[in-house]
Amino acid sequence: MNLLKQKIRTEGIVLSDSVLKVDGFLNHQVDPVLMQEIGEEFASRFAGEGVTKIITLESSGIAPAVMAGLRMGVPVVFARKRKSLTLTDQLYSAGVYSYTKNETNEISVSTDYLSSDDVVLIIDDFLANGQAVLGMLSIVEKAGASLAGIGIVIEKGFQNGGAALKDRGVRVESLAVVDSLENGSVTFHNEEASLK
Amino acid sequence: MNLLKQKIRTEGIVLSDSVLKVDGFLNHQVDPVLMQEIGEEFASRFAGEGVTKIITLESSGIAPAVMAGLRMGVPVVFARKRKSLTLTDQLYSAGVYSYTKNETNEISVSTDYLSSDDVVLIIDDFLANGQAVLGMLSIVEKAGASLAGIGIVIEKGFQNGGAALKDRGVRVESLAVVDSLENGSVTFHNEEASLK
Repeated sequence: MNLLKQKIRTEGIVLSDSVLKVDGFLNHQVDPVLMQEIGEEFASRFAGEGVTKIITLESSGIAPAVMAGLRMGVPVVFARKRKSLTLTDQLYSAGVYSYTKNETNEISVSTDYLSSDDVVLIIDDFLANGQAVLGMLSIVEKAGASLAGIGIVIEKGFQNGGAALKDRGVRVESLAVVDSLENGSVTFHNEEASLK
Repeated sequence: MNLLKQKIRTEGIVLSDSVLKVDGFLNHQVDPVLMQEIGEEFASRFAGEGVTKIITLESSGIAPAVMAGLRMGVPVVFARKRKSLTLTDQLYSAGVYSYTKNETNEISVSTDYLSSDDVVLIIDDFLANGQAVLGMLSIVEKAGASLAGIGIVIEKGFQNGGAALKDRGVRVESLAVVDSLENGSVTFHNEEASLK
């Protein structure tokens, strides 16, 4: 996705060798046109897989997931990080450890909105160590649903989440894979550092 | 918005005289086609107001706000309910008391994404007592930005948020106004109860 890589290059901020801040178009301010293109790209990559439902995690996964759902003609369920008083239903839940926040959150999806008939596409904004996606995978398994694959906006290729998922035989489609953030600059996968 | 009202009638669940659960298409599972129509309706109602930015609150405001932003050609900023370790910037913040959760959350927007040059449309999923919108209004005021108005998906007309905002001279556009949830059924504003 060239538009996405261009945005990362021009607006992404490398805070350290492991932290890429994209608050300008994905994690705080959202660029709706970019989200539309991302949604169309996910729809294209997972066309023909019989996807019936997209699962994402609040909050930054919602915009790309809803754009993909619009294009694919399927509903989107965002897993919640904490329970609401009006969520009176039965829940599928999983624990997700966040290395950046150093805490474990329980994420949940109502049993009303995921069943064994579903074929699920999981979408998330970032893939680093894979904890959030593994939590969503656990929820999909608890529901007895099938998995079409995982769509990631930005994968940190230098962390182990992508490899761990591929080792499980899961299809992972990442629209931009960052191989390094060293020396304050972004190197994408399959690109010479000199092309930065 | 007839499609919205029809969804509320057929899929909304009245949990009490004050709680309407719309987890099936807005607050947990999201209907992307409905979100697109909601976005187009907000864009139409606030056309010509010179809006440069949409502000919403994570998580349920994001889908309708991003669809409105797509149609209006402006970025969307979702105010965060808690700080992230990568949010190293200066913040505009406000306290928001939640009656349903019985707690006060601080919501924040980075000073990078809101300035005195902006003309802001605030979008949120629900308007009840108005606390969340008042928090976002406070953030807009702290930034010195102008306000075009407030777009609400579902307003609980029997609570005082809408009246409080209109008393301040703020334009509020609610796509569905629920006047009553008594006896387990939804009565919309300007409709006979018999038309439910």
